[in-house]
Amino acid sequence: MVPFGSESGLSDPNGLRWLDHAAIAVADIDAALPYYEETLGLKVVHDEIADDPGVRLCYLDAGNAYIQLVEPVRPGPVQQFLDEHGEGLHHICFAVDDIPRMLAAADDGNGVQVFMGGRERLACFLSGTPTGVLIELTETTPHGG
Amino acid sequence: MVPFGSESGLSDPNGLRWLDHAAIAVADIDAALPYYEETLGLKVVHDEIADDPGVRLCYLDAGNAYIQLVEPVRPGPVQQFLDEHGEGLHHICFAVDDIPRMLAAADDGNGVQVFMGGRERLACFLSGTPTGVLIELTETTPHGG
Repeated sequence: MVPFGSESGLSDPNGLRWLDHAAIAVADIDAALPYYEETLGLKVVHDEIADDPGVRLCYLDAGNAYIQLVEPVRPGPVQQFLDEHGEGLHHICFAVDDIPRMLAAADDGNGVQVFMGGRERLACFLSGTPTGVLIELTETTPHGG
Repeated sequence: MVPFGSESGLSDPNGLRWLDHAAIAVADIDAALPYYEETLGLKVVHDEIADDPGVRLCYLDAGNAYIQLVEPVRPGPVQQFLDEHGEGLHHICFAVDDIPRMLAAADDGNGVQVFMGGRERLACFLSGTPTGVLIELTETTPHGG
């Protein structure tokens, strides 16, 4: 568990800034998109293959945050999730300013792994969330940007 | 399935406006809160019992949206979810201007039930979402407000 909260809440440069996205694991993004685009009226603003996690990530603009569709492109945790749970809500992701700085400032003794997530942003998944929720962090700006 | 998307996207008065909250089903909000408040640094901005769904709803401010903790106070769908899945992500909720108007404008042939949700806002759950995701709508302003 990485404690990085503080009394200053969302204004803490080592803490959460906002909810970046809610992610939905799907077997086939192309098959899922008509519901999100046509029925819900959301627009795709980004679509990529993230090589290292091995997932296709499709971001739909919900105004204040993204809905992210996640499709595995090879075996891995998302495929395992689909095999065990079927399609559904997979994780939520908060934006933070600087993941390495935040992890250094916090108690990062649980070996949180930092990787290149969607939209060229460093990301990590928190360990030890106590209520069955997978929580990702992503940086507020592209890596090197 | 209720089609209410349009080419005008989030500016359509009969469509989605923004992501209101991501909801997490928990067995005990009091036990869950220290992680969200102290570790994540989020602040509780609203806490209520919604009588008709029979749930306690606790809203934490994530800046641009809420994280909603949902605890069943009597048997019902959320208790059933906990029994079957354990704690975890339960639904996402989008804000819309006027649920009855929206349902009237859309093809509402699936008998979507409108109820008084959290923060004195009319709410409904969409039927027929195709990717295993429970999607709620809530109005942008309190009922009668």
